[in-house]
Amino acid sequence: MLSAEDAAIAATISLLLEVSASPKSGNVDRDHDFEDLKFEDFLISSAAAFPSFLRAAESKKIGENIFYAVKTSSRWQRAGNVHFGAFLLLIPLLTGWEGRRGKEVAKIASENVKRTTSDDSIYVFKAFKICKARVLEVEKFSLKDDKTKNFIVEKNLNLYNWMLLAPKDNLIAKELTEGFKISLKASEKLFNYKNKKEAIVYTFHELLASYLDPLILAKFGYEKAVEIKIKASEALKEGIEGFKKLDQELLNIKANPGTIADITASAIFLAICDGWLYA
Amino acid sequence: MLSAEDAAIAATISLLLEVSASPKSGNVDRDHDFEDLKFEDFLISSAAAFPSFLRAAESKKIGENIFYAVKTSSRWQRAGNVHFGAFLLLIPLLTGWEGRRGKEVAKIASENVKRTTSDDSIYVFKAFKICKARVLEVEKFSLKDDKTKNFIVEKNLNLYNWMLLAPKDNLIAKELTEGFKISLKASEKLFNYKNKKEAIVYTFHELLASYLDPLILAKFGYEKAVEIKIKASEALKEGIEGFKKLDQELLNIKANPGTIADITASAIFLAICDGWLYA
Repeated sequence: MLSAEDAAIAATISLLLEVSASPKSGNVDRDHDFEDLKFEDFLISSAAAFPSFLRAAESKKIGENIFYAVKTSSRWQRAGNVHFGAFLLLIPLLTGWEGRRGKEVAKIASENVKRTTSDDSIYVFKAFKICKARVLEVEKFSLKDDKTKNFIVEKNLNLYNWMLLAPKDNLIAKELTEGFKISLKASEKLFNYKNKKEAIVYTFHELLASYLDPLILAKFGYEKAVEIKIKASEALKEGIEGFKKLDQELLNIKANPGTIADITASAIFLAICDGWLYA
Repeated sequence: MLSAEDAAIAATISLLLEVSASPKSGNVDRDHDFEDLKFEDFLISSAAAFPSFLRAAESKKIGENIFYAVKTSSRWQRAGNVHFGAFLLLIPLLTGWEGRRGKEVAKIASENVKRTTSDDSIYVFKAFKICKARVLEVEKFSLKDDKTKNFIVEKNLNLYNWMLLAPKDNLIAKELTEGFKISLKASEKLFNYKNKKEAIVYTFHELLASYLDPLILAKFGYEKAVEIKIKASEALKEGIEGFKKLDQELLNIKANPGTIADITASAIFLAICDGWLYA
């Protein structure tokens, strides 16, 4: 990346390309809206996030800019939670833009996550309160409970230590505490395809076949999440036609693997750092 | 608009919603790529323009920011001219963001166009050299000819006076010198539809049925441009099915009414100034 502005451009492009790629089983894409969440909401939210992306790249402040990204996104569209998970990944990554390649960007971002304070955690908590994202429930620090805020302050939990307490299936917490390993691996896979749209569609389904999506887990439980993971593996053998079938099946039961989409976006960002757009 | 940042967000959203609406006869949209110009190029260019949009809103500098928007867009995508016409309209409009409604925004923008200097014209000339947009040819100040640059300097032509010399069919010059009348009228039409996507598709075709597209004129000449205008009128009576048919017909002969799309984008921007996203 040449500048903080370029980093913000790359993050915005990541969101735009991710949501536009189709078919992405169960999720909103250029061909599929939900009743209360449309393709246009994602476009609007992506544009609305730009100033927060730019500030994150310039100031390296994580929590604050996650909060402002969610707040500005929610002011510009009325669908509620559009990009909470994606912002949780992209904004830390943006603070690492000066790294020469995706790997170094992820490394600097991970160090910056470790350097956050409990103020960052409070900002993320407040961001969640605005967009009411669906997350995996845990007893001690439910995002729905104001006690969590006190808990963060009492224990002086920075974002890193807070995320360490998340359930093991919380893939975003995993990314933030384990060096963005999943996103980095997926970013390499994106280079295996000549066509960008196809690259995103395949990479999304490879992730879906490899991990249980936390949103699916929260909405449908373990059994269904495992079933979808297995079905994604089978769809991968068939390619686009397989994805289309699985897409329809998941749309019918409103099972949207939103976190897998978020990680697809962070993978695109890291791939762009490695020159993917012109590969 | 609450701030210069919001104005830049609105301009970026205008480009994203415009290109996503489908079917838009003959043009790139979410369902139609050209061989050398894809939907993704428009998404990328829209994100890349954000910093120039923001600077235009903050500094009110027109020519310079048209140049930087084209330059940054061309650095991020390789399709060449993606948004030249749209930038020529949106960047002046962004300098008027403090206006309370679309009408006032257009008024301030028009005054700012009148206040430009020959430096602004030189910047626009340089922007054209980068993206090699197709424009209506004229003898005296062809954008392809370096003599034009000398002509601008000698005659001390600011953007307003330069645009006054454009052929009468140059709709963008018309907008810049006549108070954005076409965009304003189209922005009002956008409010007539409940669904945003439908609003854009219909407004685009109403413009296509009302004006000869300069890109079509430059590529195919007067007779064909008139024919397309008449066909757009007929398609309007049929609605979406009519648009789909005309779309296929124009795509087959590679007739893309790009300027009508540019004006659709500036109309969306003005409509957003009037609260259209939440109307």
